[in-house]
Amino acid sequence: MPRAVVLLSGGLDSYTAGAMARAEGFTLDALSILYGQRHALELEAARRVAHALGVERHLELPLDLRAIGGSSLTSDLPVPEGRDLSTAEIPSTYVPARNTIFLSLALGWAEVLGATDLVIGVNALDYSGYPDCRPEFVEAFERLANVATRAGVEGARFRIHTPLITMSKADIIRTGLSLGLDYGLTHSCYNPTPVGRACGRCDSCVLRAKGFAEAGVPDPALAR
Amino acid sequence: MPRAVVLLSGGLDSYTAGAMARAEGFTLDALSILYGQRHALELEAARRVAHALGVERHLELPLDLRAIGGSSLTSDLPVPEGRDLSTAEIPSTYVPARNTIFLSLALGWAEVLGATDLVIGVNALDYSGYPDCRPEFVEAFERLANVATRAGVEGARFRIHTPLITMSKADIIRTGLSLGLDYGLTHSCYNPTPVGRACGRCDSCVLRAKGFAEAGVPDPALAR
Repeated sequence: MPRAVVLLSGGLDSYTAGAMARAEGFTLDALSILYGQRHALELEAARRVAHALGVERHLELPLDLRAIGGSSLTSDLPVPEGRDLSTAEIPSTYVPARNTIFLSLALGWAEVLGATDLVIGVNALDYSGYPDCRPEFVEAFERLANVATRAGVEGARFRIHTPLITMSKADIIRTGLSLGLDYGLTHSCYNPTPVGRACGRCDSCVLRAKGFAEAGVPDPALAR
Repeated sequence: MPRAVVLLSGGLDSYTAGAMARAEGFTLDALSILYGQRHALELEAARRVAHALGVERHLELPLDLRAIGGSSLTSDLPVPEGRDLSTAEIPSTYVPARNTIFLSLALGWAEVLGATDLVIGVNALDYSGYPDCRPEFVEAFERLANVATRAGVEGARFRIHTPLITMSKADIIRTGLSLGLDYGLTHSCYNPTPVGRACGRCDSCVLRAKGFAEAGVPDPALAR
C-alpha cells in the first residue's frame, strides 16, 4: 500500500482529510507541529485522532514560532471573536507562512520515509481567508516539492492531496460521519479552552458550529 | 533602506551573500537554524558573522531535524570523505527539504518584519549537487512565496536573492575579500571540528580549500 504523510492538527479537517486518504488506500504517517500555538492542547486531540486513524507513526515536532510571532495564535494579541466571515480580510490568526513551513517539514519527512504523497486538510470555502489554504498555494508547493528534493530529481512525483479544498464544512462533516469518524475526539477552538470544548466565538468555533448546524447533526465534542 | 532577511549558517557562502546584499543597500536581519546538525558549532561562527555584518537582529531558531533524519548531517551516518565531486550523485549530507524548510521560516519572519527580500547563499557550481541549491528550486520557491503569504496576496512581491548561485568558490572568495570580509570568522567543516578548523576531507572542506587555492590566497581559518 502506498504511504502518505498527513499533517494532523487535532481538528476535524485534518482528521477527515486523513480518513479520506486512508479510504483511498494509503497507509498513513502523521505529523503534528507543536509551534507555540495558544491552543497547544490540540496536540492531545491530534494524538487521539492519530490513534483512531491507525497511523503507523505519529511524529510530534516542536518548532516554536513564537520567536517569529506576527499572529494572535503565537503571541499575546487577542484572538478575534464574532468576526464577519464574509469579508475578504485576513484575520490576525493567520500565522505567517505556516502551511509553507508545515508542508516543508512533511516533505522532508516523506522523503526519508520513501513517501511521495502528502495530505493536508486545507479548505478554501468555509475558512478564514488564509492565503496558504488556496489551490494556487497548493499547486505552487507541489511544483516546488519536485525540484526541491533528491526524490524529485530522481524521478519521484510528489502529490499534495487536499481532499477538502472545495468542500463546505457541512460536507466535510457528512463525509467524515459516513467514514465512521468520531468528531468527539477533535479540538478546533483557537483559545486555550479544555480539549474538546469550544469558546464558540473564534473563527474556528464559528465555522465548526455552522458546519454541524448545516449538516443537521450535533457536535459530539460539545455534547460531552 | 530596504530590509532583507539573510539565512546565515556561519559558513563563507552565506557570509558573502549577506555582505553582497548589504553592499546593494539592504539593512540585514539574520536567521540561523539550530537543526541538530553535527557541526552545530557553526552557530558560533554565525554569531560572529552576524556581528561583522552589522545585522539588526539575529534570530537563532531551534528546529531539531534529527527527528526526521535521513542525512549524515543529522544522524549517526558517517559524513563521506574524499568524495569525487564531479559525479552527479547527491551525497548523504543532503538534508531532506532543508532549504525549503529554512526559506519557509525566513519567509514567515520576513513577513512579520515587513521585508520582502530573502538572501540565501546557495551555489550551483562548486557544490555537492543538492537539489535545493539550483536555480529551478529558487524560482519555484519565489513563486510559492507570493501566493503563500498575506503580504503576497496584498500585492507585495517577494524576491529570493541568490548572488552566488552561478559563481565559482574562488570568485565568491575574491568578491568577499574585495568587500573586506574576514573569512577567519567562518566555519565550513561538516564534522564537529573546533570552530574555524577543518577536517579537510568532507565535501565542504574540499570545496573551500579548492576555492582558496584557485583564488590564490590562504584560508585565514586554517592559518590560525
